[in-house]
Amino acid sequence: MVPHLVPRWPVCLFRWRAACTLGACVPQSAWAGASRTPGPGSPRGAVGTSPLVRRGGSSSSSRAPEVMLTRERYPVQRLPFSVVSEEDLAAFERITPGRVVTDPEELEASNVDWLRTVRGCSKVLLKPQTTEEVSHILRYCHERNLAVNPQGGNTGMVGGSVPVFDEIILSTALMNQVISFHGVSGILVCQAGCILEELSRYVEERDFIMPLDLGAKGSCHIGGNVATNAGGLRFLRYGSLHGTVLGLEVVLADGTVLNCLTSLRKDNTGYDLKQLFIGSEGTLGVITAVSILCPPKPRAVNVAFLGCPGFAEVLQTFSTCKGMLGEILSAFEFMDAECMQLVGHHLGLISPVQESPFYVLIETSGSRAGHDAEKLSSFLEHVLDFGLVTDGTLATDQRRVKMLWALRERITEALSRDGCVYKYDISLPVERLYDLVSDLRARLGPQAKHVVGYGHLGDGNLHLNVTAEAFSASLLGALEPYVYEWTAGQQGSVSAEHGLGFKKKDVLSYSKPPAALQLMQQLKALLDPKGILNPYKTLPARA
Amino acid sequence: MVPHLVPRWPVCLFRWRAACTLGACVPQSAWAGASRTPGPGSPRGAVGTSPLVRRGGSSSSSRAPEVMLTRERYPVQRLPFSVVSEEDLAAFERITPGRVVTDPEELEASNVDWLRTVRGCSKVLLKPQTTEEVSHILRYCHERNLAVNPQGGNTGMVGGSVPVFDEIILSTALMNQVISFHGVSGILVCQAGCILEELSRYVEERDFIMPLDLGAKGSCHIGGNVATNAGGLRFLRYGSLHGTVLGLEVVLADGTVLNCLTSLRKDNTGYDLKQLFIGSEGTLGVITAVSILCPPKPRAVNVAFLGCPGFAEVLQTFSTCKGMLGEILSAFEFMDAECMQLVGHHLGLISPVQESPFYVLIETSGSRAGHDAEKLSSFLEHVLDFGLVTDGTLATDQRRVKMLWALRERITEALSRDGCVYKYDISLPVERLYDLVSDLRARLGPQAKHVVGYGHLGDGNLHLNVTAEAFSASLLGALEPYVYEWTAGQQGSVSAEHGLGFKKKDVLSYSKPPAALQLMQQLKALLDPKGILNPYKTLPARA
Repeated sequence: MVPHLVPRWPVCLFRWRAACTLGACVPQSAWAGASRTPGPGSPRGAVGTSPLVRRGGSSSSSRAPEVMLTRERYPVQRLPFSVVSEEDLAAFERITPGRVVTDPEELEASNVDWLRTVRGCSKVLLKPQTTEEVSHILRYCHERNLAVNPQGGNTGMVGGSVPVFDEIILSTALMNQVISFHGVSGILVCQAGCILEELSRYVEERDFIMPLDLGAKGSCHIGGNVATNAGGLRFLRYGSLHGTVLGLEVVLADGTVLNCLTSLRKDNTGYDLKQLFIGSEGTLGVITAVSILCPPKPRAVNVAFLGCPGFAEVLQTFSTCKGMLGEILSAFEFMDAECMQLVGHHLGLISPVQESPFYVLIETSGSRAGHDAEKLSSFLEHVLDFGLVTDGTLATDQRRVKMLWALRERITEALSRDGCVYKYDISLPVERLYDLVSDLRARLGPQAKHVVGYGHLGDGNLHLNVTAEAFSASLLGALEPYVYEWTAGQQGSVSAEHGLGFKKKDVLSYSKPPAALQLMQQLKALLDPKGILNPYKTLPARA
Repeated sequence: MVPHLVPRWPVCLFRWRAACTLGACVPQSAWAGASRTPGPGSPRGAVGTSPLVRRGGSSSSSRAPEVMLTRERYPVQRLPFSVVSEEDLAAFERITPGRVVTDPEELEASNVDWLRTVRGCSKVLLKPQTTEEVSHILRYCHERNLAVNPQGGNTGMVGGSVPVFDEIILSTALMNQVISFHGVSGILVCQAGCILEELSRYVEERDFIMPLDLGAKGSCHIGGNVATNAGGLRFLRYGSLHGTVLGLEVVLADGTVLNCLTSLRKDNTGYDLKQLFIGSEGTLGVITAVSILCPPKPRAVNVAFLGCPGFAEVLQTFSTCKGMLGEILSAFEFMDAECMQLVGHHLGLISPVQESPFYVLIETSGSRAGHDAEKLSSFLEHVLDFGLVTDGTLATDQRRVKMLWALRERITEALSRDGCVYKYDISLPVERLYDLVSDLRARLGPQAKHVVGYGHLGDGNLHLNVTAEAFSASLLGALEPYVYEWTAGQQGSVSAEHGLGFKKKDVLSYSKPPAALQLMQQLKALLDPKGILNPYKTLPARA
């Protein structure tokens, strides 16, 4: 940790010192590779050594260790679906000519999740280009009782995007066309396989931004984002996809096309069916197109990176920030000292501020740079005067903004290089957010290498991660169900934004009552009576 | 119409001239009664003479004319539900002691909608206080096959909140307790029968605002707002209830309590069941409690009321406004010249600006008055310079802000005094929003007294209203299905925010495809297999 040379700066100089601060403390080389993981083209770039990886060598090996098959690692039984036959392959070839993948090497990337924690053994991947093709595929699979695993960018955190057994992988990779964009309203309509980052670029050229942004933007598909109700970095400002998604086109399990692809802000004609599919992780239907409301591109973006002496001060900084920055606040992220140590140790990133127990990243996005700077200036003066913040730096140009964001965004990558990672994504009342981290640190003692807390504080969303040299059943036993019970005790959510997928489906009942689970199962039975869509995911197996 | 004395003011004086402008042109007495209709305690204050009213006298009569029974006016058949017996009444008395209303006079207000267009003949109204009581009532009704009409403030526009036949009225009027409020996050949890205006007052005292506001705020219940997915005046800024409602407690048709009353911003554990009930108009379950995210109270609110020379200029003003006011824009409403004539003629309101073909009301809500004023000033200078706006006035203090809002909000009231009103609530691509009004004006000619267009331009939501001296089948024939077909031709929605209720249920198919309708019917059958919840509403009768 490199201590900051001047622990306290006069606020009036704030904007001008930013460049020097970063220039002095953060070697360019360390930042050069800074990109949100997983990056474009390398969805499994951040190879972790998770509890479920059968390690074939050291984590620094150039060849990634083989991932254990899910069916071998987990107590899961294949359901009585049909097995893909030569006849089926011929039928698929007729539906998607030249886009039926059976080459084992090509399939490997789609059988394993990017965290390298689960692995299916699908023998076929289909790449439809149109909704009609998806409809034909599903109609065929429904008739033949073949299970289907819809897959977008395969960037999920809970094993929801890869097969558990031999499900057919239905990839949206070639469904990547923008259908329309309305320059006044900012309403984008596109196919489900468009990559988030490419959509961002497309709408930014037209003076809008996507209402969501996340680490996996370089690989993730908008259809997958919607199917998993992705949260991410702009949630605080632009809210949930349940509000910003205006319409969806979905293909149901039997091949029926449900066209609710409206591009209207308001539509109260009957039940809002699209909501069913937002966050249902491909288990109720396959999203083929999305209509989404894009906010205008802010003319000024500022990022402040601050050091706080304690979590109480982080909370007070948040309250103050909401009051003083008001409508221009677009992100309030936090990370603890151990996170900073990890990004320093594993990625060579150097803290731009004095060593502190907690760090806060605040982003503002506004329409008038001068006004935003004034608001930010008053805010910073206030938090410094009241001792809520002890050190900080500010970035206004895009390059430095990205550098500061990298400190927060690359924590996942640093963790994956630290050894075996146990990941939890929890929603809690904001004032209790860090108590779970402290509790766990005390509970686990030397069993854990690191117990870290970071996340979207503004949304009450804690990313709790525990690392160890290698997988340990006793450590897992100390963590679970303790973490889930602790969360349930606070009426929290055991999955804030990652969803349940395969790996978390059995903890649903910590956050939802039996009546809710029953209704979910009824909905699944209604929409997918044969259960062919993304089986073994989201809902626990029926007793 | 009082022409403005100075048709064009220097922008620098904008803020200071506002008081004089209003003071000079708007007699205090004319504004004294200005309140959003329906007002507290007078849900049927704005007595209209609609096509479905059997007029017993002139519209100025002190006694409201009797409303024709729905079953006599419409071709609707009672479904084979049981009829409430003495034994049933005794059972209800045990569940809600002293809160079983059978007095015909008391029932009358709940049998007729506030627009006085539909009328049921329910013989009993129940006033539960707790979720448990609602659960007991529904379990009983489900077993006995008794139909139930959930009712909040009875302020709906489409006859969804009153019985069609003799359904039992289940009122949320006594379920009016705030359960909790979190002062940091702004998350309010309350019972469904809380009146919106009272909640507004409650959270405003704590430096927050409700994320929705609408004309009926003095009477409408938050549960009804959620059940109808109310839009209203803050939609442009804070978005849909699908985004701001965090949790719901709902009692299902068989009495099962579905507790999804989380107060977390993020929760991705399983399907987001609450979404099913938002906008389903009480046909899938009875909402008993709501958890909702309240935005911080803005420190400065400004309202500009502007005259525009044409609809093209209204649109350009909107685009300019979005760019220049950015994050502080909180409403962009429009009304045409005929609307202004009507509020002048029937309510004595006087335009604060020069006579214009169109008027625009722009509201800003921000955290720093000085910054907001500067932004607004630059914007106004721009729109004046470019001839997009020809006259305007600005209000910054609460009293004058309310006065300007009244011009827009009291249009409904003025229309109801103009004679027989044909009301349409349409979503359209914003650039085609007014074409329908112009088309209709030409199509109807002297058949119509007035054809007016106003609404939430920022949301693409047109309120199209046609008035005539009396109900005319030929006028109705000229309007329908023309209006619906025109809307469908633009991929618009035939109900933007009012819902379908009883009166619009048969036009659903203009905005939704058959596959969507089929799924809606399946959902209804799943959640309410006996169809006892708000029957004859939202979905068209099955063939």
